[in-house]
Amino acid sequence: MKQFDVIVVGAGHAGCEAALAASRMGCETLLLNINLDSIALMSCNPAIGGLAKGQLVKEIDALGGEMGRVADRTAVHFRILNASKGPAVQSSRVQCDKQLYRLTMKSIVERQPRLHLHQTLIDRLLIEDGRVTGVVDHTGVCYGARAVVITPGTFLNGLIHVGTAHYSAGRAGEMASLPLAQCLCDLGFEMGRMKTGTPPRLKASTIDFSRLERQDSDPAFEPFSLSTERLGENRLPSYFGYTTSETHRLIRENIQCSPLYSGAIKGVSARYCPSLEDKVMRFADRGHHPVVLELEGLDTEEVYAKGLGNSLPLDLQEQIVHSVPGLEEAEIMRSAYAIEYDFVQPTQLHHTLETKKIRGLYLAGQINGTSGYEEAAAQGMWAGINAALAVQGRPPFVLDRSEAYMGVLIDDLVTQGVDEPYRMFTSRAEYRLILREDNAALRLTPRGFELGLIPPEHFGRISDRIQRISKGIKRLSSLRIYPGADVNSKLEKKGSPAIKNPLSLFQLLKRTDFSWEDLDLFRDVPDFPEDVFADSDRHVRKQIEIEAKYEGYISRQREAVARMKNLESRRIPEGFDYSAVPGLSNELKMKLSRIEPETLGQARRITGMTQAALAAVLIMIKKRE
Amino acid sequence: MKQFDVIVVGAGHAGCEAALAASRMGCETLLLNINLDSIALMSCNPAIGGLAKGQLVKEIDALGGEMGRVADRTAVHFRILNASKGPAVQSSRVQCDKQLYRLTMKSIVERQPRLHLHQTLIDRLLIEDGRVTGVVDHTGVCYGARAVVITPGTFLNGLIHVGTAHYSAGRAGEMASLPLAQCLCDLGFEMGRMKTGTPPRLKASTIDFSRLERQDSDPAFEPFSLSTERLGENRLPSYFGYTTSETHRLIRENIQCSPLYSGAIKGVSARYCPSLEDKVMRFADRGHHPVVLELEGLDTEEVYAKGLGNSLPLDLQEQIVHSVPGLEEAEIMRSAYAIEYDFVQPTQLHHTLETKKIRGLYLAGQINGTSGYEEAAAQGMWAGINAALAVQGRPPFVLDRSEAYMGVLIDDLVTQGVDEPYRMFTSRAEYRLILREDNAALRLTPRGFELGLIPPEHFGRISDRIQRISKGIKRLSSLRIYPGADVNSKLEKKGSPAIKNPLSLFQLLKRTDFSWEDLDLFRDVPDFPEDVFADSDRHVRKQIEIEAKYEGYISRQREAVARMKNLESRRIPEGFDYSAVPGLSNELKMKLSRIEPETLGQARRITGMTQAALAAVLIMIKKRE
Ligand SMILES: Cc1cc2nc3c(=O)[nH]c(=O)nc-3n(C[C@H](O)[C@H](O)[C@H](O)COP(=O)(O)OP(=O)(O)OC[C@H]3O[C@@H](n4cnc5c(N)ncnc54)[C@H](O)[C@@H]3O)c2cc1C
Ligand SMILES: Cc1cc2nc3c(=O)[nH]c(=O)nc-3n(C[C@H](O)[C@H](O)[C@H](O)COP(=O)(O)OP(=O)(O)OC[C@H]3O[C@@H](n4cnc5c(N)ncnc54)[C@H](O)[C@@H]3O)c2cc1C
Repeated sequence: MKQFDVIVVGAGHAGCEAALAASRMGCETLLLNINLDSIALMSCNPAIGGLAKGQLVKEIDALGGEMGRVADRTAVHFRILNASKGPAVQSSRVQCDKQLYRLTMKSIVERQPRLHLHQTLIDRLLIEDGRVTGVVDHTGVCYGARAVVITPGTFLNGLIHVGTAHYSAGRAGEMASLPLAQCLCDLGFEMGRMKTGTPPRLKASTIDFSRLERQDSDPAFEPFSLSTERLGENRLPSYFGYTTSETHRLIRENIQCSPLYSGAIKGVSARYCPSLEDKVMRFADRGHHPVVLELEGLDTEEVYAKGLGNSLPLDLQEQIVHSVPGLEEAEIMRSAYAIEYDFVQPTQLHHTLETKKIRGLYLAGQINGTSGYEEAAAQGMWAGINAALAVQGRPPFVLDRSEAYMGVLIDDLVTQGVDEPYRMFTSRAEYRLILREDNAALRLTPRGFELGLIPPEHFGRISDRIQRISKGIKRLSSLRIYPGADVNSKLEKKGSPAIKNPLSLFQLLKRTDFSWEDLDLFRDVPDFPEDVFADSDRHVRKQIEIEAKYEGYISRQREAVARMKNLESRRIPEGFDYSAVPGLSNELKMKLSRIEPETLGQARRITGMTQAALAAVLIMIKKRE
Repeated sequence: MKQFDVIVVGAGHAGCEAALAASRMGCETLLLNINLDSIALMSCNPAIGGLAKGQLVKEIDALGGEMGRVADRTAVHFRILNASKGPAVQSSRVQCDKQLYRLTMKSIVERQPRLHLHQTLIDRLLIEDGRVTGVVDHTGVCYGARAVVITPGTFLNGLIHVGTAHYSAGRAGEMASLPLAQCLCDLGFEMGRMKTGTPPRLKASTIDFSRLERQDSDPAFEPFSLSTERLGENRLPSYFGYTTSETHRLIRENIQCSPLYSGAIKGVSARYCPSLEDKVMRFADRGHHPVVLELEGLDTEEVYAKGLGNSLPLDLQEQIVHSVPGLEEAEIMRSAYAIEYDFVQPTQLHHTLETKKIRGLYLAGQINGTSGYEEAAAQGMWAGINAALAVQGRPPFVLDRSEAYMGVLIDDLVTQGVDEPYRMFTSRAEYRLILREDNAALRLTPRGFELGLIPPEHFGRISDRIQRISKGIKRLSSLRIYPGADVNSKLEKKGSPAIKNPLSLFQLLKRTDFSWEDLDLFRDVPDFPEDVFADSDRHVRKQIEIEAKYEGYISRQREAVARMKNLESRRIPEGFDYSAVPGLSNELKMKLSRIEPETLGQARRITGMTQAALAAVLIMIKKRE
């Protein structure tokens, strides 16, 4: 049996990041996928990023992951979402050439030293004394490892539904993974069933684009990755349209044909991402719903029809498509479908994504009840890092909720579990003002460097940047301007109120009507920090301005973090006996015993937990110490 | 039920050409494939062309097919095989970027007007009164058509073997097509089982290329397609190595692990394309066998290891790979495997590739017991053309054995049937001197034009070329040079014997030591055909020279063709009663009744047919007339 340090099962978005992280950290890593031609395939829309997801991608990049870089290299359409709002809720989103994305990620994975790639289907795990020791493929070949990361996406017992028909598949046209699902079930994991869906793919030449609203790329777009020097030149537009009352009539009158409504689908679907059936049935008052058409690549006719996701029979799908202005003649190249699959309730995981039941076994991606490429990649990277650290006998890597969206994601999963497919939202991050896209590198690149995921030169650039930012803030804070006709007339010219007391340049920057460029007015002030103002790194200039503008909010949030950390860091001893805590409801006792929170902070976030219960636990801990 | 003129099931090499031909001829054509991401995937080596196969590709191109054009566009390595031999046995072969080939063919298929592409798995046929009326997919969706072409490759009941393990699959990592196989069987088709295999894919970075012999592309390469103006710039080398006595020991000592020798594989494999097990066991005296490494693309580490095809267990595969100098450390990215699949005995087909049993149903590609992309594409195009002609009520399209390798291929299949996977060889073509790569367009482009497959401009260029060639031959034949000191000293300088009698320039060109360029010597002769000599079209110059050099052979072969045509063209009446022919063996009577040859020529080529039997049939036909 061949031995590896880490084995990753599944080379989707989670699996690729997991294997890259582990091998970059020095582990001999084996990455296995059913078919090498489906590595990093985008199952649904050809897009990376989006609200809160953009933050995840920048965090993955800041730690030394690959998703952002590949997205930059293969993107054909760029948007900054919430561009008019504050930096905390701004997110980047790109559409990629789907095939190019897949092939680019494949070639990166292929070229990574210590990463061994092999095509096969894994059927079960090898376990000895509660510890995973390897995996077995469908032909009986065994591979040994000290840690195993499982990332099978929607393939575990995948069952596709189109109308009343259903069949076993991992994705349309791909085989499901049945024995591995059974193996996890046999090991005693609590599993559940979820459902997701994908819209039809239409043929570009059969669409009347003139009847749709064209949207072009944003011209100014900050790449996801700090290592991307220049974005590619290729651009594709996307197109907007709307469903009609005819669309809605078709759905209402045929709703019994939908497996979602006939009871055929048992898996739970995401409320926040309803199928077209759901939208029409649940929001009966809405006269139309948006449809967005995204071309899947530079050299293909396939068009992703966002908003038309459903699981109705093909003939109805066609009528529905045709009821949208501009799509009267559109041909369906791939049908929409719904897929049900098994997931593992993630409360059975430590914060490292290692399972509590089986040492050395990590789960990441859709298997943990999440949805989305970015959520999968973030977990994959996290699990890969922790698998490598465990193999190397180093302490685990965990980011908390104040450090990264990744920390929020993992903490939500392992603490609260999931009752519907989980995706990231900015609203889930209570400290979102400090978890911005723009400061991801400042927050996380030093961590990535410690882990061995960031090359020293790159880290040097980032730490230099961090120093220049704090030095810049200091210099701008120490240089004051004084009330006087000259100063105030300059301010007036910019439409900014006159000053009555001396004010530092940094304080001036807080004004919403005063921008970085406006500092130019005061370059004649003695000791003006010319080098800060003209810093060649736009990130330095931007960071100082954001820190100034949002300083009030940011510092309040930093205080909240400090308070939280106090509680958060209070560890609950292993094997803590909740049954002995007076005043806890039986339900809470059971829940806490099952989830085994590692800290009081984690305990606090368990649904049903009250302040009183928390206090009771804290008292008991103190008593026992 | 949606109605089409022609439906093609399977978008492999046969299916793509079939659908392109039918739609280009004006038919509304539906092309269906299990997964749109596997259209035109190369199951085995990333190469197009080769001995006799290069001829097929040029013929496909000459008729207006796509394989040659896509190969030209995506090729990274070019060879002219048998370059030192006569033009009749010279063949072109290229290695392509496998993913680029697939994506390029997909985008051509997508952009073809009247060609409708949809992803689905077809389970059965709709039949009414002995005629096919449509197909049904695995979710129960029906599609109607007036003709159906089935091209499912190795997917019918595909069963993969690796060592003692075996599992259902159409190719590694892809699902098999089971119900369609059952459907054909239920319809009463005589089916059989064949076997093919593929070598492992190795990781480039783990190969020590310095220990292998490098082969670069031939600098001078004629594109497959006449519409290719310039070949791409990208080039990849290939590498040669050899198996060792250690390789052979490993195989001999573990031969019981091979499903080929354990009896697990029942399908018939091709004798001419033995697996490594076969080579070692059957040619025990050979100390080593060649291994050729072909990179699968510009941006991938996957390397095709030709010569190492086997179906041994993975651990043995690894030892075998490592026993080849240069591959000591090589990693296997995809295992070698053997696959068994169902085929339909092609004697059940007319020369149009329509089944005799079910009208409107055509079979093409691997399903007819052939092997190879080119053989599949040729049949696909042929079936697509005939399906379209039938739908349009036009007479069928059949090329005979003297017109094209395609004619040889189809005639061999429907007349002789197959008892092992059939591939094309130059030796199968008795008229190979006139079926050259270089004259494919002259032979077939007028036919392609008649069919509506060749755009008028392109046809104009070709017919102009044909005229210029015959005019050129005439002019060179009529211009003589006369014995004399001046002429003979010129000839001597070129090392060509002096002349004693007047000789035309065309006759001079027959000399092996006298090339086209040498005509330059006689440009001062009055009336020298300057325009012919300096024709800007290199094909014109080359054709005239070949016609001169091989005129003797060629004209003898043309006479043989004429004689053959006489017999060939003698039709056997439909429903001819062989039991009434005196002197025929019972076996022959049964065979002839089953195969129902359409002409005496076809009858002649049935295995077991004698001259006497043929004469008996001919007499009976004459008697009945
Ligand atoms: C139909 C459909 C619709 C979706 N719609 C949305 C959507 O609207 N919004 C959204 O955010 N997300 C959507 N998703 C989810 C998104 O695709 C996933 O969240 C994301 O791809 C998960 O990444 P992953 O790495 O966990 O799994 P995947 O990307 O699915 O990768 C899993 C990989 O594991 C391999 N594998 C599986 N089992 C085995 C095994 N036993 N042995 C070896 N290899 C194995 C597979 O071949 C595959 O390559 C959809 C997914 C599907 C299938
Ligand atoms: C493992 C392996 C090794 C091979 N080795 C060699 C070799 O050494 N030399 C050689 O010359 N040839 C080899 N071949 C054969 C070569 O790949 C085939 O001859 C060629 O690809 C046949 O072309 P085709 O169009 O008939 O089928 P394919 O190219 O196989 O295409 C068939 C297509 O049909 C689709 N399909 C199947 N069933 C259905 C259905 N029910 N509904 C919808 N779509 C369907 C499939 O998805 C596929 O795209 C090998 C093939 C395999 C699989």
